[in-house]
Amino acid sequence: MADRNAVVLLSGGLDSAVALAICRADGFTPYALTVDYGQRNRHEIEAARLVAQTMQVARHIVLPVDLTLWGGSALTADEDVPTGRSTDAMGSDIPVTYVPARNTIMLSVAMAWAEVLNTGDVFIGAHTLDYSGYPDCRPEYFRAFEKMANLATRIGVEESTRFRIHAPLLDMSKTEIVRQGADLEVPMALTSSCYQPVEGLVACGECDACILRKRAFEEAGIADPTEYAEQ
Amino acid sequence: MADRNAVVLLSGGLDSAVALAICRADGFTPYALTVDYGQRNRHEIEAARLVAQTMQVARHIVLPVDLTLWGGSALTADEDVPTGRSTDAMGSDIPVTYVPARNTIMLSVAMAWAEVLNTGDVFIGAHTLDYSGYPDCRPEYFRAFEKMANLATRIGVEESTRFRIHAPLLDMSKTEIVRQGADLEVPMALTSSCYQPVEGLVACGECDACILRKRAFEEAGIADPTEYAEQ
Repeated sequence: MADRNAVVLLSGGLDSAVALAICRADGFTPYALTVDYGQRNRHEIEAARLVAQTMQVARHIVLPVDLTLWGGSALTADEDVPTGRSTDAMGSDIPVTYVPARNTIMLSVAMAWAEVLNTGDVFIGAHTLDYSGYPDCRPEYFRAFEKMANLATRIGVEESTRFRIHAPLLDMSKTEIVRQGADLEVPMALTSSCYQPVEGLVACGECDACILRKRAFEEAGIADPTEYAEQ
Repeated sequence: MADRNAVVLLSGGLDSAVALAICRADGFTPYALTVDYGQRNRHEIEAARLVAQTMQVARHIVLPVDLTLWGGSALTADEDVPTGRSTDAMGSDIPVTYVPARNTIMLSVAMAWAEVLNTGDVFIGAHTLDYSGYPDCRPEYFRAFEKMANLATRIGVEESTRFRIHAPLLDMSKTEIVRQGADLEVPMALTSSCYQPVEGLVACGECDACILRKRAFEEAGIADPTEYAEQ
């Protein structure tokens, strides 16, 4: 039995499932938190439930925070997500799939639950490589969040329970994440990365997320368990 | 017509209604955001709707974020709130009515909406006096939040749209807030401060919040429009 609790943000995607496995491998008891912000990929939430159950977390909470009320992202509104692009074309600009303040909102609710669990350890599967371009995935952002969190809370003033955001995938490529997932026996077949799945677990195979995921399995030399729509 | 948008966190209480009036007096077009975090005082949400409507905000959104899922506060769980205490007895410790990460969660969702409205201006009715004792009402916390928010977002990198948390009541006493509310013609009768209202608008008259509110109206020399239960 691990002697320290941690909250893990679990999206239903591949990255956060690997972050959860690392959290456990690091000796924490994981509590998984999924924020249902109204993402178009409704299967993500179900994927998160399956991953949490299979990986036997201490508790899994799905918290609705409906960010579709004000729109502002291709992931929550009826804008098109980009498809059929080469990885070179993805560039380094902030993409249309950026959701304003998403990581801040997810970390804030994780921080609330962590404080109730009397821990400051929060895991997130963010990474900066592979063309993500999201400002709220940068190391300096996470450091600023920690500083703010320690000023905001009852537990932040105690050295033993200070907030620490663990982003173990931050400097990994998607290929390294897949390799790590295989090493830690993450149930990767249950995870969902696609921005616009055709039906349930069946991924479109054409959006940026699918293209990056496919390439990562190829480069890692690991059979891709994902079911893609026929093209 | 004001030329700049601002998001105002509107709780249904007295303080945030006064903050909304100051926001408008400062020349902003106010968009009001109420976070329904599962507070025991269910009338607060209805009070927020009435205040938003009466004060004619550009738009009012009530966003549910259910913090009762993990408990941790007398305001969201079945712990008792303190009643019948003198203001001296309230002390400066963090009170049981502290809700873990509440201000951070509210500011995070306000930040998301603000970014969609292409503004960095967010108003909050927090104040540090009158025995609040909440760590997330301190000026250094708000400065740390701004720094984090500017690193997190698309608009934070632009000087003209940098995040700024306006907490105009921060150094005011409750008495000064009541005076300011009267000066700006805030519909204070519609606001609800009580931690455990007897029924709808009828306040208990005994909890810390009622005691501070009563005293503020008395000291300001303004007739208290609140309906208190007979004792």
